[in-house]
Amino acid sequence: MKTLSRRARLAAAEMSALTAFFTARADPARAGRADDGVDLTFGDPHELPLPGLVAALEAHLQPRSVDWFAYKASEEPARAAVAAALRDELGLAFEPADVAMTQGAFGAIALGLRLVADAGEEVVVPAPGWFYAPMVRVADLVPVPAPLAPETFDLDLASIERALTPRTRVVVVNSPANPTGRVYPRRQLDALAELLEDASRRLGRRIWILSDEPYRRIRFDGVGFVSPAACYPWTLVDYSYGKVLLAPGQRLGYLALSPLLPDAQREALRGAFFPTQMAVGWGFPDALMQYAVPDLEHVSIDLAELTRRRDRVLAALDGWGYRMTPPEGTFYLWGAAPGGDARGFAAALAARGVQVLPGTLFGSPGHFRVCLTATMEMLERALPAFEEVGRTLGGGAGSPAARTTSAGGEHGA
Amino acid sequence: MKTLSRRARLAAAEMSALTAFFTARADPARAGRADDGVDLTFGDPHELPLPGLVAALEAHLQPRSVDWFAYKASEEPARAAVAAALRDELGLAFEPADVAMTQGAFGAIALGLRLVADAGEEVVVPAPGWFYAPMVRVADLVPVPAPLAPETFDLDLASIERALTPRTRVVVVNSPANPTGRVYPRRQLDALAELLEDASRRLGRRIWILSDEPYRRIRFDGVGFVSPAACYPWTLVDYSYGKVLLAPGQRLGYLALSPLLPDAQREALRGAFFPTQMAVGWGFPDALMQYAVPDLEHVSIDLAELTRRRDRVLAALDGWGYRMTPPEGTFYLWGAAPGGDARGFAAALAARGVQVLPGTLFGSPGHFRVCLTATMEMLERALPAFEEVGRTLGGGAGSPAARTTSAGGEHGA
Repeated sequence: MKTLSRRARLAAAEMSALTAFFTARADPARAGRADDGVDLTFGDPHELPLPGLVAALEAHLQPRSVDWFAYKASEEPARAAVAAALRDELGLAFEPADVAMTQGAFGAIALGLRLVADAGEEVVVPAPGWFYAPMVRVADLVPVPAPLAPETFDLDLASIERALTPRTRVVVVNSPANPTGRVYPRRQLDALAELLEDASRRLGRRIWILSDEPYRRIRFDGVGFVSPAACYPWTLVDYSYGKVLLAPGQRLGYLALSPLLPDAQREALRGAFFPTQMAVGWGFPDALMQYAVPDLEHVSIDLAELTRRRDRVLAALDGWGYRMTPPEGTFYLWGAAPGGDARGFAAALAARGVQVLPGTLFGSPGHFRVCLTATMEMLERALPAFEEVGRTLGGGAGSPAARTTSAGGEHGA
Repeated sequence: MKTLSRRARLAAAEMSALTAFFTARADPARAGRADDGVDLTFGDPHELPLPGLVAALEAHLQPRSVDWFAYKASEEPARAAVAAALRDELGLAFEPADVAMTQGAFGAIALGLRLVADAGEEVVVPAPGWFYAPMVRVADLVPVPAPLAPETFDLDLASIERALTPRTRVVVVNSPANPTGRVYPRRQLDALAELLEDASRRLGRRIWILSDEPYRRIRFDGVGFVSPAACYPWTLVDYSYGKVLLAPGQRLGYLALSPLLPDAQREALRGAFFPTQMAVGWGFPDALMQYAVPDLEHVSIDLAELTRRRDRVLAALDGWGYRMTPPEGTFYLWGAAPGGDARGFAAALAARGVQVLPGTLFGSPGHFRVCLTATMEMLERALPAFEEVGRTLGGGAGSPAARTTSAGGEHGA
């Protein structure tokens, strides 16, 4: 007799490579070695938590009423602060009732998928992209990868159109994009909206956008941001404070409805927030985190410092012949692995004490991701390994041969 | 075109009465009135949070490392503290790896259902019982109510057997039981284990027990506790600290595997914890709550005071002819509504400023539930209303006629 459900097995299979990574990181033997090395894999903090975060928690820790730690759903002050911020940032008329407070973006994605999609329906996910597939599987849905544009990693409308079927219910858009760092311009989002509106009419069923925006406030060089919520009314926005606070262990995020939604649908979804969140597993943030929202709206990692790190590493890698995708947002650097084999490249770096994520984990076996949440000191310590491995695997730093090799097979898989 | 998924609509339908209750409570107009009344509906705190809880949070708020608020899965010190407590309490050889830390019992139930059950399978839930049905629906499963024994609210094996079908995957056992306060003796659990073992063999598929034990530590008069995990190896135990701490707004709980599970199945489930919890929506408690677990293991509401409240209200209601089920555990009192109509009874009490939950919310339209988390002062203030309404609806306090009337139709629905 089987032990695990099919959906648990499918989810585990979708993320087996990621699980192996986490398991290895939890291994005490490896942890000992990591002290000498530089870990550039995940968006983990490498400095003490932001003082503003700690202060916001301290400010709300002492109970002020008997119900201070009672059951909390989406608390009104938190919703109001979020709606006000969304109005400012996106220029749309968000109201507090459009906002469901969640345990980070994970919780918001879990909620969004269950609000609008039913078992067996399909969810189009970007490739390369974040780890949507396991979440889609456990929600009894089917992930359908839509490759981003080769080289530029822009939205590829033809690719999304090919991914659509009569079972499509949701298309995930992630901007600023993990792992590529791309921020999609309004033009691309408008074209996507037109495509999805046409397809919804043709198929006689509404296709939704789930706009995954946890990096929305982490952008470089004054690059603007347009949310799909401004271009396509049937958009659910998910957000996490875990990136801008660099504190993903204190779960806080939200799901928000596009204010452009037709009234009847907006009302239906607002009314479904509470029962669905309860049923998903009381998916609301802890009381303490909700009290802190108005304060936390003004706390952020140092974007100027992040820009300096990006510029330093990008310039160095460019100089050594790496073919990188200059990020417009997120705290990642994405590029082609010299030699074209991400695993071999990551292993060669690891042998020199530097850990990066092979693109294999994102379905891109020819690329790699570097996380810039490391300190500048850590990055400086890591750079010589990049130079050495680039020269060894790429056939000579900066050489055209190296560039051709590394570009080859980028989207072959 | 439909807006909401079928599962969101089914979940909302299953809990429409509960949602209405919550919505009414959030209504500012009603909130104003409630200041004068006595709210005995939900397990909400009516006194300031326990000093031990606040101290445990304070003790772990100041970051001691760069990863203090980094991504947390099931943290080892938390798991070890839970496993040690479970060994003591249940006399079974729990190991830390058997424990998945979750955002309260809701999170543990959501995880448990998805670990072992697939879309379309059935979950047998107790009636009257807690609000399992919406969670079951959103997990794409089908709730099948199995009535508890009339009058005693013991487990009714014949009723459970009737509820089993070739699609049954999980049977929920809740002891101490909400709303009835019953604690099931070993004899009943052993008989249930035999029934489920026979049925699993006959049907050629394993039926699991989900043992919902959030009130495990809240028992009266030295009543012992036996977990189904000690009687039936295929048992998943879920627990919440939200009851014993009376702080459900700070989510903390766990799912634990019976150590009696065959090794291969135990290993498979241990290995599935991380990917499934990630996929469910990063279903781990906040970092702060996990750090606090070893401290919180020693914090509890005052059980002696809770016993005094139970004794006071039970004696008063008994004296006025109410037919109550004396609770062995939980912080609820459950009884037959004088007149036999729970809604009418609750409305009559509400008109006198006292709020109780009609049994209708638990599928028992002839009963009502009183929550003893209110202060003794609140309970004293509420008692005259019970006397008056009991006399009015029950046809005279203490009269045999009243008793017959209130007992009638108890399980007619």
